[in-house]
Amino acid sequence: MINVYDTANQLEKDLRESQEYKDLQAVVAKVKADDATFAVYKKLREAQKTLQEQQMQGTLDEKVMKSLQEISQEASQYPLMMELMEKERAISVLIDDLNKIIFKPLSEVYDIEG
Amino acid sequence: MINVYDTANQLEKDLRESQEYKDLQAVVAKVKADDATFAVYKKLREAQKTLQEQQMQGTLDEKVMKSLQEISQEASQYPLMMELMEKERAISVLIDDLNKIIFKPLSEVYDIEG
Repeated sequence: MINVYDTANQLEKDLRESQEYKDLQAVVAKVKADDATFAVYKKLREAQKTLQEQQMQGTLDEKVMKSLQEISQEASQYPLMMELMEKERAISVLIDDLNKIIFKPLSEVYDIEG
Repeated sequence: MINVYDTANQLEKDLRESQEYKDLQAVVAKVKADDATFAVYKKLREAQKTLQEQQMQGTLDEKVMKSLQEISQEASQYPLMMELMEKERAISVLIDDLNKIIFKPLSEVYDIEG
């Protein structure tokens, strides 16, 4: 019997063992250990969360966009934040690839307009 | 060597073989074969796409919400659309489960506020 859950659990383990994941873990630990960087990190997350919530509710306002821009600029002064973003980009590429592979059957089934 | 891509490809195959996927494929084929149902199906997709685009741009308006509501109500008159939604719910549960399993390492790495 095919067990899709067993395979998913294997993929979870593989992801955990990937270089991209280990690099991300390492830089997050460094960010957390540095008070100044961690403060700007938390500020940035908060601003991103607010933006996302507003997008979902369709109430996006200019002030929030501008504030996020300013915090992003501030964050870019911190070398550890730059390193974090680099590692996040790397793992994003991997995650996007995985999603494209795994969920190809779904996009196929919905590609029925043509 | 661990190959996360091999595992992802295996998961894609397993998903394709799952009962949830086969059921979805079957009902989509039936929807496509029935002109009246397929017309309302396409109308519903279009309305959902418009709503999503507006959400992303933060320009969600009442008219679009109301129009989607009306089309959803119309769609619910079609037995095949009801069957489609049921099969979509079933596969959504599976997909959510898979995502939770696979990407648990990511939520862990970001759970650093505590």
